[in-house]
Amino acid sequence: MKLMSHERIDELYSLGIKVIQNPQVFSFSIDAVLLAYFTQPKMSQKAKIVDLCSGNGAVGMFISQKTHGQINEVEIQPKLTEMARRSIHLNGLDQQIKVTTADLKNVPQQIQPHSIDTITCNPPYYRNLSTTKESRNPYLAIAKHEIKTDLATVIKTISKLLKTHGHVFLVYPPSRLIELFNALQKYNLAPQKLQLAYSGIEQPAELALIDATKRGKITGLKVLPPIITRNASNNGYSQEMQQIMFKPWK
Amino acid sequence: MKLMSHERIDELYSLGIKVIQNPQVFSFSIDAVLLAYFTQPKMSQKAKIVDLCSGNGAVGMFISQKTHGQINEVEIQPKLTEMARRSIHLNGLDQQIKVTTADLKNVPQQIQPHSIDTITCNPPYYRNLSTTKESRNPYLAIAKHEIKTDLATVIKTISKLLKTHGHVFLVYPPSRLIELFNALQKYNLAPQKLQLAYSGIEQPAELALIDATKRGKITGLKVLPPIITRNASNNGYSQEMQQIMFKPWK
Repeated sequence: MKLMSHERIDELYSLGIKVIQNPQVFSFSIDAVLLAYFTQPKMSQKAKIVDLCSGNGAVGMFISQKTHGQINEVEIQPKLTEMARRSIHLNGLDQQIKVTTADLKNVPQQIQPHSIDTITCNPPYYRNLSTTKESRNPYLAIAKHEIKTDLATVIKTISKLLKTHGHVFLVYPPSRLIELFNALQKYNLAPQKLQLAYSGIEQPAELALIDATKRGKITGLKVLPPIITRNASNNGYSQEMQQIMFKPWK
Repeated sequence: MKLMSHERIDELYSLGIKVIQNPQVFSFSIDAVLLAYFTQPKMSQKAKIVDLCSGNGAVGMFISQKTHGQINEVEIQPKLTEMARRSIHLNGLDQQIKVTTADLKNVPQQIQPHSIDTITCNPPYYRNLSTTKESRNPYLAIAKHEIKTDLATVIKTISKLLKTHGHVFLVYPPSRLIELFNALQKYNLAPQKLQLAYSGIEQPAELALIDATKRGKITGLKVLPPIITRNASNNGYSQEMQQIMFKPWK
């Protein structure tokens, strides 16, 4: 496996998945690991799974270890889908995972609407802000900010693709949780589960994980146990997070 | 102080507030303590504060220790407002706390609309279900179930009473969090802070605490650190909860 300039291979040891990373282009981080850990994909070989905003393909590869279904990764940036294809090949997952370079707003033309059982998505978190720092690195800017897409478009696309009662699993900043809940409901997606990740037991939540289902009921939200990601004493990963990173997932 | 049949006096030691309780009529529990602890009432003597669904008056009395403002407790059940008045007298709080027996949907006729700085509310949690158990104890049924009021009426009333930029602090079951967020927004109340209480670090959330402001923005929700209420080893109160119950609040 030949790596390009600035590239390295990181491994999620709990799953034995290797991911080509490039800090100048895109690196998966704890968000992707927690999203995959949180996701309960449909298991069967017939299951159709889509990962939107798939970046360098990390989430889709992690999810592949939890299902026998077919996974389609959709990402707008060709530089990232090219990295994802090489990572998928490196892990021998070419049969299970397909990568599509596309703007997600056009995806419903390539994937049959209302045909998907499970969608995962780690969308851009921040509203489009043009700062000098961003304009210097368009790859990261597009991945993290609403430049090429926005929340409404992401959720609308998810709703179009999902089967009735299909599930979407999202990771999103708590600061935009109300907007997310509103957008989900607008497009007939009912939040079912919420799990919050805190960097410490005395810290505000840093990430929200959301499981929503198409045409479900909005009563009965289950708020799962908190995830504490860091160790207060040395700021390393908490025991719980180390388990997620290094021990096989149940 | 003469107690009626089945009554006892409980004390919240952290604040030195004594509350007349009657398990056959109404007893405040951890919900009331956490709501009061979470609430940031306007401090000044001119502040106007209302506690809706005030039960036996516990929340209003706890809040009185955090503000110099005037507090109006509103409760529909005369049996409970009578208990509240005796508790308020017992604590020497007659000057600061007034008790009104009223159906909250009529409250805006008694309290000037758009005049309140801070509202607290521990509303009935459950939809109206007629079970034998409930019909045997109408006091508890009314306090816990949507028999005399419902979420929409509660939130509409709060919105009518609050000043622009006034805050409401609520405690509610996580299972109805989406409904609550929807109702708040319908009546121009924007959730600002959310804090979740879990009975253990590996347990789902049992209570949600919500701070919303009238005509605020829905972006920037802050999810405060988790509260863990119980000790996994012996199921007693956690150290954190013991602090809240027994040590002076900062």
